[in-house]
Amino acid sequence: MQKQFTYPFAAIVGQENMKLALILNIINPLISGVLIRGEKGTAKSTAVRALADILPLIEVIDGDPFQLPPGADRSLYRDYGFDNGTETVIRRKVRVVELPVGATEDRVVGTMDLERALKHGEQRFEPGLLAAAHRGILYVDEVNLLDDHVVDVLLDAAAMGINTVEREGISFSHPARFTLVGTMNPEEGELRPQLLDRFGLCVNVTGIQDTMDRVAVMERRIAFERDPEQFCAEWEAESAALRERIVAAQALHPQVTAKRDKLVAIAERCKEFDVDGHRADIITLKTAKALAAWDGRTAVNDEDVQRAVELVLPHRMRRLPFEEIGEVRA
Amino acid sequence: MQKQFTYPFAAIVGQENMKLALILNIINPLISGVLIRGEKGTAKSTAVRALADILPLIEVIDGDPFQLPPGADRSLYRDYGFDNGTETVIRRKVRVVELPVGATEDRVVGTMDLERALKHGEQRFEPGLLAAAHRGILYVDEVNLLDDHVVDVLLDAAAMGINTVEREGISFSHPARFTLVGTMNPEEGELRPQLLDRFGLCVNVTGIQDTMDRVAVMERRIAFERDPEQFCAEWEAESAALRERIVAAQALHPQVTAKRDKLVAIAERCKEFDVDGHRADIITLKTAKALAAWDGRTAVNDEDVQRAVELVLPHRMRRLPFEEIGEVRA
Amino acid sequence: MQKQFTYPFAAIVGQENMKLALILNIINPLISGVLIRGEKGTAKSTAVRALADILPLIEVIDGDPFQLPPGADRSLYRDYGFDNGTETVIRRKVRVVELPVGATEDRVVGTMDLERALKHGEQRFEPGLLAAAHRGILYVDEVNLLDDHVVDVLLDAAAMGINTVEREGISFSHPARFTLVGTMNPEEGELRPQLLDRFGLCVNVTGIQDTMDRVAVMERRIAFERDPEQFCAEWEAESAALRERIVAAQALHPQVTAKRDKLVAIAERCKEFDVDGHRADIITLKTAKALAAWDGRTAVNDEDVQRAVELVLPHRMRRLPFEEIGEVRA
Amino acid sequence: MQKQFTYPFAAIVGQENMKLALILNIINPLISGVLIRGEKGTAKSTAVRALADILPLIEVIDGDPFQLPPGADRSLYRDYGFDNGTETVIRRKVRVVELPVGATEDRVVGTMDLERALKHGEQRFEPGLLAAAHRGILYVDEVNLLDDHVVDVLLDAAAMGINTVEREGISFSHPARFTLVGTMNPEEGELRPQLLDRFGLCVNVTGIQDTMDRVAVMERRIAFERDPEQFCAEWEAESAALRERIVAAQALHPQVTAKRDKLVAIAERCKEFDVDGHRADIITLKTAKALAAWDGRTAVNDEDVQRAVELVLPHRMRRLPFEEIGEVRA
Amino acid sequence: MQKQFTYPFAAIVGQENMKLALILNIINPLISGVLIRGEKGTAKSTAVRALADILPLIEVIDGDPFQLPPGADRSLYRDYGFDNGTETVIRRKVRVVELPVGATEDRVVGTMDLERALKHGEQRFEPGLLAAAHRGILYVDEVNLLDDHVVDVLLDAAAMGINTVEREGISFSHPARFTLVGTMNPEEGELRPQLLDRFGLCVNVTGIQDTMDRVAVMERRIAFERDPEQFCAEWEAESAALRERIVAAQALHPQVTAKRDKLVAIAERCKEFDVDGHRADIITLKTAKALAAWDGRTAVNDEDVQRAVELVLPHRMRRLPFEEIGEVRA
Amino acid sequence: MQKQFTYPFAAIVGQENMKLALILNIINPLISGVLIRGEKGTAKSTAVRALADILPLIEVIDGDPFQLPPGADRSLYRDYGFDNGTETVIRRKVRVVELPVGATEDRVVGTMDLERALKHGEQRFEPGLLAAAHRGILYVDEVNLLDDHVVDVLLDAAAMGINTVEREGISFSHPARFTLVGTMNPEEGELRPQLLDRFGLCVNVTGIQDTMDRVAVMERRIAFERDPEQFCAEWEAESAALRERIVAAQALHPQVTAKRDKLVAIAERCKEFDVDGHRADIITLKTAKALAAWDGRTAVNDEDVQRAVELVLPHRMRRLPFEEIGEVRA
Repeated sequence: MQKQFTYPFAAIVGQENMKLALILNIINPLISGVLIRGEKGTAKSTAVRALADILPLIEVIDGDPFQLPPGADRSLYRDYGFDNGTETVIRRKVRVVELPVGATEDRVVGTMDLERALKHGEQRFEPGLLAAAHRGILYVDEVNLLDDHVVDVLLDAAAMGINTVEREGISFSHPARFTLVGTMNPEEGELRPQLLDRFGLCVNVTGIQDTMDRVAVMERRIAFERDPEQFCAEWEAESAALRERIVAAQALHPQVTAKRDKLVAIAERCKEFDVDGHRADIITLKTAKALAAWDGRTAVNDEDVQRAVELVLPHRMRRLPFEEIGEVRA
Repeated sequence: MQKQFTYPFAAIVGQENMKLALILNIINPLISGVLIRGEKGTAKSTAVRALADILPLIEVIDGDPFQLPPGADRSLYRDYGFDNGTETVIRRKVRVVELPVGATEDRVVGTMDLERALKHGEQRFEPGLLAAAHRGILYVDEVNLLDDHVVDVLLDAAAMGINTVEREGISFSHPARFTLVGTMNPEEGELRPQLLDRFGLCVNVTGIQDTMDRVAVMERRIAFERDPEQFCAEWEAESAALRERIVAAQALHPQVTAKRDKLVAIAERCKEFDVDGHRADIITLKTAKALAAWDGRTAVNDEDVQRAVELVLPHRMRRLPFEEIGEVRA
Repeated sequence: MQKQFTYPFAAIVGQENMKLALILNIINPLISGVLIRGEKGTAKSTAVRALADILPLIEVIDGDPFQLPPGADRSLYRDYGFDNGTETVIRRKVRVVELPVGATEDRVVGTMDLERALKHGEQRFEPGLLAAAHRGILYVDEVNLLDDHVVDVLLDAAAMGINTVEREGISFSHPARFTLVGTMNPEEGELRPQLLDRFGLCVNVTGIQDTMDRVAVMERRIAFERDPEQFCAEWEAESAALRERIVAAQALHPQVTAKRDKLVAIAERCKEFDVDGHRADIITLKTAKALAAWDGRTAVNDEDVQRAVELVLPHRMRRLPFEEIGEVRA
Repeated sequence: MQKQFTYPFAAIVGQENMKLALILNIINPLISGVLIRGEKGTAKSTAVRALADILPLIEVIDGDPFQLPPGADRSLYRDYGFDNGTETVIRRKVRVVELPVGATEDRVVGTMDLERALKHGEQRFEPGLLAAAHRGILYVDEVNLLDDHVVDVLLDAAAMGINTVEREGISFSHPARFTLVGTMNPEEGELRPQLLDRFGLCVNVTGIQDTMDRVAVMERRIAFERDPEQFCAEWEAESAALRERIVAAQALHPQVTAKRDKLVAIAERCKEFDVDGHRADIITLKTAKALAAWDGRTAVNDEDVQRAVELVLPHRMRRLPFEEIGEVRA
Repeated sequence: MQKQFTYPFAAIVGQENMKLALILNIINPLISGVLIRGEKGTAKSTAVRALADILPLIEVIDGDPFQLPPGADRSLYRDYGFDNGTETVIRRKVRVVELPVGATEDRVVGTMDLERALKHGEQRFEPGLLAAAHRGILYVDEVNLLDDHVVDVLLDAAAMGINTVEREGISFSHPARFTLVGTMNPEEGELRPQLLDRFGLCVNVTGIQDTMDRVAVMERRIAFERDPEQFCAEWEAESAALRERIVAAQALHPQVTAKRDKLVAIAERCKEFDVDGHRADIITLKTAKALAAWDGRTAVNDEDVQRAVELVLPHRMRRLPFEEIGEVRA
Repeated sequence: MQKQFTYPFAAIVGQENMKLALILNIINPLISGVLIRGEKGTAKSTAVRALADILPLIEVIDGDPFQLPPGADRSLYRDYGFDNGTETVIRRKVRVVELPVGATEDRVVGTMDLERALKHGEQRFEPGLLAAAHRGILYVDEVNLLDDHVVDVLLDAAAMGINTVEREGISFSHPARFTLVGTMNPEEGELRPQLLDRFGLCVNVTGIQDTMDRVAVMERRIAFERDPEQFCAEWEAESAALRERIVAAQALHPQVTAKRDKLVAIAERCKEFDVDGHRADIITLKTAKALAAWDGRTAVNDEDVQRAVELVLPHRMRRLPFEEIGEVRA
């Protein structure tokens, strides 16, 4: 099949909050994902798919279905032929794995490989989407329409960082740490609060109202469809700049610190907005630190806290009529 | 079986909007299909099936289930015997593939060929309707009654231009770019807005009120049923003229341009009608360009924009009671 | 099993409209069937089953599951052993094939013959009820209770005149032109309008109110049950007369013509009653022609149009409370 | 297993209508069965099961699963070993076959014998309950709770007198003429009118109000449970008398005639009560004739008509609130 | 596994009605079981399970899955190896078989043993819970939550005393006479009246209000949990006394008689309370006789009738709001 | 896979009631589990998973899937190779087995090992989660969303202490004594009262309101995520102290006694709050004794009773609007 070109992330007109939320999760995947809510036709899916373009590289062993780091203990994975000292280490982009709305549990968690069992007389675990998404991004479009059972499986894996499958008396585990990105159109039904709470950040997107921006949307789209290769080439400089800034922020991030007064400020904002439990506090803190790194700083400042609060708290406030999610300014 | 004759597209009495919307999609398939809404007995299905009569020719390799262009890279498709240098290139009409309302997901996306696996000890992907529809038209009658799950699969493929199937650990992809044509009777239930939005154009058809036109409908139908071969021969000249005009418009279309003031006009109309997102802007622009090509021009004019708006916007306006879809004049 | 005797069509007391509608469909199957609506115990099923008694003969090859005419191209059907020049042509009555309410899609459209595949290493299509009904009558009792999915399959085949089955990558087609006859009791639920519209004619039957006619119903039934063979012998003369008149009308029918003023009259009646689309116009014209043939004439007259309107329009009028279907006199 | 003793029909206290309706159906099975409606604990099931005690003998070939009369053509049943001239003809009682509420369609109509197919390389039809009930009684307890699909199958077979099964391209038929007896408690839901109409007769039973009769019920039940063999022996004389009277009535029945004035009276009563269609007329006539035979006469009299009307019409009257079914005196 | 100790029946504090109802059913299983209704935590299940402790012994052949009496005709059960003259007769306690709420029909009625069929080339019936419960007690906890279909199967077997299974053309029967004991919490939904009526007796249990009795409940429970063996030993004398009294009552029971005035009294009470049908009369009579036997008498007295009425009638009275079941004093 | 570090139980900020309830169940598993109700993000799951850290050691035979004590009779388990005198006894921590919300009944109770049956010609029981949880903790997150059928199975096993599985005529039992721990968010639906009652204790958790405590939550979480190994090392001293105190309480527990006045006090409190039945009395007594042991005493005092009442009674009080569960102070 011919090479597929993806619309460049940098060429998306407007939608700054959405783009920022995605980037913050790349800087620190422990922010626990982002939920993008918005009306039809607002480039939600385009943005997530475009992420692949600006994601950093990771090292894996060529063909490893579990995407472990080259130095990892892989004694449990000998059946897959990756423990014989002859592996090739490659560097490739972080993956965006898309979870189809109709995916079965088997497809998500993996299953026992019956064909192999019949042919070779031995069972082997056949990895699913959770294995493919390890160290990457798991994208669920129309996340509000996902089967409840699959949602449970997803959240279990996301919470534990491990996927454990037990079938016919055999148990198999592999790491599954991924950034969960969901998109949804609230006209088609809301997420239940339990699931809403598991997304670290939430942004609302709406259509652009500025006429010339709308013209730009049309012009860029038509140009991309006419000649995708050429269009991507034209935006390569901007894309490269974004990639470099992300890599720099990732490198800086471990050194970012937040003074206790910033933590106190976060705790007080969360109490003030009466959010459930403590997840909001912790994610706000992580988001503020990622914002500092994105800005090239190593100390969280008040503005970082304020912006983080805006991304973390709105979808967690109690008794809020759903239409107003995200409308609240902190 | 004897040769089947199809009622000629050119012999359909009236219903100009419906015929135009179908032709515009043939000129530019990226217009994203057309939804034909109308009461019973208004020749909706007849018109779509009649399309086959006036569709242009494409080049394919004889027997290729994936309908790739002759020069395409087909290294992934060696199992199908089309990579040995002895293929015959043929020219045949674009296909109208009909998706039955009760079609299963397997039937739509294709499946692994178990019989072959049992006989020859190897699995091969068995293409489905999406493969058959590549470079052609996928027609769904009573699209409002289609199973939600199949709708999701259809829209995913339509949006990506690729169909990817994963079964038992094997992944297979093939291109699936098609024009989606749906017909429906709104008495039997409406489409949900999300799906409505995915159809580029929407036309409403009603029965003809002019008595002599109704007489013409009867006369032509009776004549066709009495001797289909003879009837088609009588209309062949008109059919040929239509085919030629379509081929000419297709050839002219890449040269059509729209000045920025036309884009501004489109953006303002879309804002004025308060449609969601930006899909409407982009499709209106494409439709206007196809209209110019159909008219033999290379520059979009104001009338093109106005006609395009009438085909693109009505089914996208918010909070419109469904009965009024299409009644609104832009 | 002993010979089964069927109650003679000619011995049915009253119910002239129902009997006429069935006969008109035998004269011209393109009238698209008849729906018989009526209360319990009004001989609806008896009448349809009795049809077998008066149906004309057709020529088929003995044992041909597809009932093709002897001279048809049967190169596609070699697997069934009917292409070796040694077939026996027989003349037999047109069949009344009954579709059970609980019939599965496989039973209706046919299926791949797995047993044969296992034994002989080759798949063969196993014809279903649609093949059995080709060139005959397909009867659905309690059609309003039929599974929606089977209804779709039926209507698709009826509209196309072809049954196409695709299973596991193999596609098989055979002609399926049949007269659809449905019976229903409106107390058990109405047909949805879409399906109602697909029946060419519709008649309502009610119990007979004349006492001596009721006595006749009792006497004939008791006589038939006491000695079916004797009863049928007594009615054979009347049955033979009916058969001959039908054969004569079939022969005359291709010569029947309708002047343009008759078409104008039909178009105006259909507009006046505000029916959807154009199907009603076309079927009224066909019915009027069949009535002329039944009456031994080759020109449609005003009375033919009026009677046809009464059989075609009532169940197609809009916004009519269902209880009144058929009450309206045109 | 030890011999099972059944409570004697003759020992049932009261409930004369119920007992009469059952006996009339034995005299003429074409009366089309009886529906027994009544509150809990009113010996409905006991009465039906007790029928076995007083049923006449029929001749069958020993072991014949289709219960054909000894002289019947059995060329279609050679697979069952009953066409080799060595059969033993036996006389045994008519059977009461009980259809369990949860019976599947396969269990009712029979199925293809896969085990035999696997062992002997040939398929054979495995008869179901309809074959077992041929020439006998098919009893459905709680008939109002029966699955709709099984009801359809039952009624089809009952109406045609034949059971036809088609599976995997093989069709098999056998005669299935039986008396349908249903019991139900109206507190648990009514029958839909369509099914109600298919039962020839309908009787309502209620608990006995006379104290000494209730004491008799207790005494007889306790006596039966203490020593069933002894109890049956004590009632044998009354049972034998009943059996003989039934046999005599069966022999007399073909000679019973009804004068035309009786038929006129029946038709007028049915019109007066505004029943649907003509089934009521026909069954009233048959019931009156069976009553005459039961009374030892060969001519139907006015009282026969009156009693028949009381058994046939009440459950067929229109728009009657269900609670009042059977309350109406004709 | 270690020996399981069951809490002794004799050690249950209070709940005299419940204990009496269970004992009466042991004395005469034809009383048709008991339904125990009560709030959570009132020792309902404990009491039923404790029954095993005081049940009389029966003679069976060691290992006989059908629990037939040693002298029974077992020619039908040769496949099970119990007809060769070398059986060992043992005496063991009547069994309490527990029917799990989720039990399938196969589990209840038994099924064909496919494994054996595959290994030994012969089918054999694999007995289910009904066989295991023959001559014993079948206990259904949360009987109001049982699947309707399983309820039907249970009641059929209970009413007939026989379990008949037909699968793939093979029919198998075995005796299934058991005492049905159900427990339920009315907060979780009531039984439908049809099922309620099939339980001979019904008792309501509530928590004990006396403080020192509650202390006794605590003390005994804690003592039992600390050392079950020791606790059972301490209560053995009381348990033995109970067992002996039950055996004596069983022996006396066949000699108990009720004078006609007692039957008249029962009939009049049942009429007075307007119960459906005659089941209540018969069961009240049986219960009164069992009470006389339990009291060591051979003649039913007025108090027996009164107590029996209190156990039999309350759940059978019509139009009683369910909350009041059992509240009514007769 | 790398070693997994669990957040230390001792490092959980606040939530004293929840921590105490868990510890009391470890001291005496017959307290019957604990239900933790609370809003999102309140460390419910973290606390249960952290339990593993402080649980005492038990002795098992290495690899024994039934976790029997080394000296247990294992004649029934020979198929598993643990009865040959060569077992290795190991000491390991009590397990926390997690029951996934979507677990099937087979997964919970175990199943027959078909693979082994096919390979070795013998069936063997394949233990499920109930076997894995024996002598340990069975944790159900979102217990209010669990399938009703699985709930029944769980409660049956929990009540009996045994898991019995019957499949295809084979019955297998193993001990299954475990502490049931459930967590739930009441926003997502309440438990039905029957299930609520089966949990010995119930605690409600809410987010911490003290700002500095919230800061501590953030600081500890961030520290744990940055370097889990280091964080656990820092808390090891506190964890060890907890473990020792639990071991001491377990050892002391059998000597704890409650004077009769304490039992009277418990009975009166339970009557006063009008709880159903007697389970509350018994569990309150057990809880009070475990509290005494936790406090290092051998006699229950008034404060133990009071604290026990607060943990046992609130979720058992009648007619309490669910929102107020746990709000009531005893």
